[in-house]
Amino acid sequence: MGEQSVAQTFKAEVITDYLHRLFEAAGANEKEAKQIADHLVMASLRGVDSHGISKTDIYLKRIKENMINLQPKHAINRETPVSALIEADNGMGIPSAEKAVDLAVEKAKKTGVGLVGVSNSNHCGMLANYVTKAADQDLIALAVTNAPAVVAPWGARQAFFGTNPIAYGLPSNRPHPIVFDMATSKVAKGKIVLAEQEGRDIPLGWAITPEGEQTDDPARAIEGCILPMGEAKGYGISFLVETLSSLLTGAAYGPNIGDLFSEFEQKQELGHFFMVMRADLFVGLETFKHRIDTMAEEIKQLKPMKGVKEIYLPGEIEWLNYEDRKLNGIPLSMQMLETLDAWGELYGVESIAVK
Amino acid sequence: MGEQSVAQTFKAEVITDYLHRLFEAAGANEKEAKQIADHLVMASLRGVDSHGISKTDIYLKRIKENMINLQPKHAINRETPVSALIEADNGMGIPSAEKAVDLAVEKAKKTGVGLVGVSNSNHCGMLANYVTKAADQDLIALAVTNAPAVVAPWGARQAFFGTNPIAYGLPSNRPHPIVFDMATSKVAKGKIVLAEQEGRDIPLGWAITPEGEQTDDPARAIEGCILPMGEAKGYGISFLVETLSSLLTGAAYGPNIGDLFSEFEQKQELGHFFMVMRADLFVGLETFKHRIDTMAEEIKQLKPMKGVKEIYLPGEIEWLNYEDRKLNGIPLSMQMLETLDAWGELYGVESIAVK
Repeated sequence: MGEQSVAQTFKAEVITDYLHRLFEAAGANEKEAKQIADHLVMASLRGVDSHGISKTDIYLKRIKENMINLQPKHAINRETPVSALIEADNGMGIPSAEKAVDLAVEKAKKTGVGLVGVSNSNHCGMLANYVTKAADQDLIALAVTNAPAVVAPWGARQAFFGTNPIAYGLPSNRPHPIVFDMATSKVAKGKIVLAEQEGRDIPLGWAITPEGEQTDDPARAIEGCILPMGEAKGYGISFLVETLSSLLTGAAYGPNIGDLFSEFEQKQELGHFFMVMRADLFVGLETFKHRIDTMAEEIKQLKPMKGVKEIYLPGEIEWLNYEDRKLNGIPLSMQMLETLDAWGELYGVESIAVK
Repeated sequence: MGEQSVAQTFKAEVITDYLHRLFEAAGANEKEAKQIADHLVMASLRGVDSHGISKTDIYLKRIKENMINLQPKHAINRETPVSALIEADNGMGIPSAEKAVDLAVEKAKKTGVGLVGVSNSNHCGMLANYVTKAADQDLIALAVTNAPAVVAPWGARQAFFGTNPIAYGLPSNRPHPIVFDMATSKVAKGKIVLAEQEGRDIPLGWAITPEGEQTDDPARAIEGCILPMGEAKGYGISFLVETLSSLLTGAAYGPNIGDLFSEFEQKQELGHFFMVMRADLFVGLETFKHRIDTMAEEIKQLKPMKGVKEIYLPGEIEWLNYEDRKLNGIPLSMQMLETLDAWGELYGVESIAVK
């Protein structure tokens, strides 16, 4: 890590506006460009830099390489009062997933539950954002997506599953809903990619080389496989995520998915799945939220392990990052700024960097 | 481990019949006694001894201590076409959960999805059995339950969550559906209890003492806390399991749950939650099953890690145990037989042990 790694800090609005203009200049329509910019900046605000502004480069590259359909039809198929399948028509993943969660929310409000799958999609950013949207409307939400094969099923030395994240959102009277988002791999691939971009080593135990040996070199890890979290347990959950995201929806699965970073011939064909349900199915809404708040407070008041200052709720650290970066700005490395500037030059969008 | 640890081996039917008669003699009705006997023997057939026949002792003890209502009303509340809450009326957990999954299956067949919660329940055995029941009817099922506080939220040194298992079942054309059932703790408490019963040490890393130190002594582990699997990730999933099982259903949560083994004043008030959905929501049923079968076969054909002979599917080892024990019988330790015999003597049910 050099002194360049954090170069300048920007207000979220400044970066959002810049990304918005970049994606519009690249050919996305006004609404989708805004959705993508908002989404990526939100991920960075939450401190999830691997799924935030850093994704701008590869998203724009895939658009430029004609890997994305910028006029997708987003057909709603197989619709019932509780379910629907969105054929994303190889559109950008973020607007496709936004549409899916909105539809699941609408169904859940009417019937109690909404199950919406998405097929033929692309990388949809950070799942936390979708479940937050539902939880902000007092609904319980679960979201899963598959991803290009980088994780070895437990016992194998070949990649098959993606990092296959699972996220949930729970309404609460706290300042933010409880929002948790985790990869079922030992680590998100984005974190390894970011480490490589920034020239950092990764911890041993995250990944193996193609020969099945542990490595701290992010480049070797990208050639090899990531390990599942909790060994057989992470493998088991990842199998479920893959099933709901793709076997159920008709999306591509496992090694059939086009890689985000290296594949510019084959489309991704990713699948996502959203389940939204009313929080007042069995007890009243205020009772539910009060129970969440009470349990949360009880957990925070437990005696900490040695060396631990504060016990955090699931996803609480991300909300603390959000408050901090919302107030103090988002740091961007010099390398990131240069990458963004190159796109700005290409598309005639003025740089935000202070020269 | 002494030579006594496996004393005699019995056909499943012999043990089932014996347990059936024991539970009936203890006051359960014919149907519930059969459900409980079938359930516990099925868990042992699958090799999950911690949740199988070994649970007979504590179940009968709780009945004898009047901790269980053997004439529960099982009222169905808050019913909609897609959801219902079963008030288990402090009945045995297994029949209460059977009723819930049956209702979720019925709703899923009609509407596409069924969400059924259970409140005021007791230990419901092994979740795998419930999701198997749904998967055998070509439905996708998820099941969660909370459990007495034995696991420290990540960062704490006090127990708050239970082992909070999550299970799923996926229909397939393989000989058995894909059925996966895992504790969100590093290990199921039943495994620690069984180790203590059989005088075995436990691996370091499973649990901490009340002072927050790792231990290999199962008795000290039972006094202390189990750790979550995958650290913050298991904590995050456990929080969701607790929420769906109890905050949503109105059941007791966290440390408010009565302990299965040591609490004979306060009822357990456990909560469970089942979600069943049609596998043909988006693609046809045969397509879905074919996709499951194909993915399963592709995973099994991957190159194994060094030292690994065969890559197993999630839950496949349990089905192999099932085939083996169905054919060759279930081994019971001398200690287990003596425990069962003591109940037989009390209730006038003839022992199955070969004297």
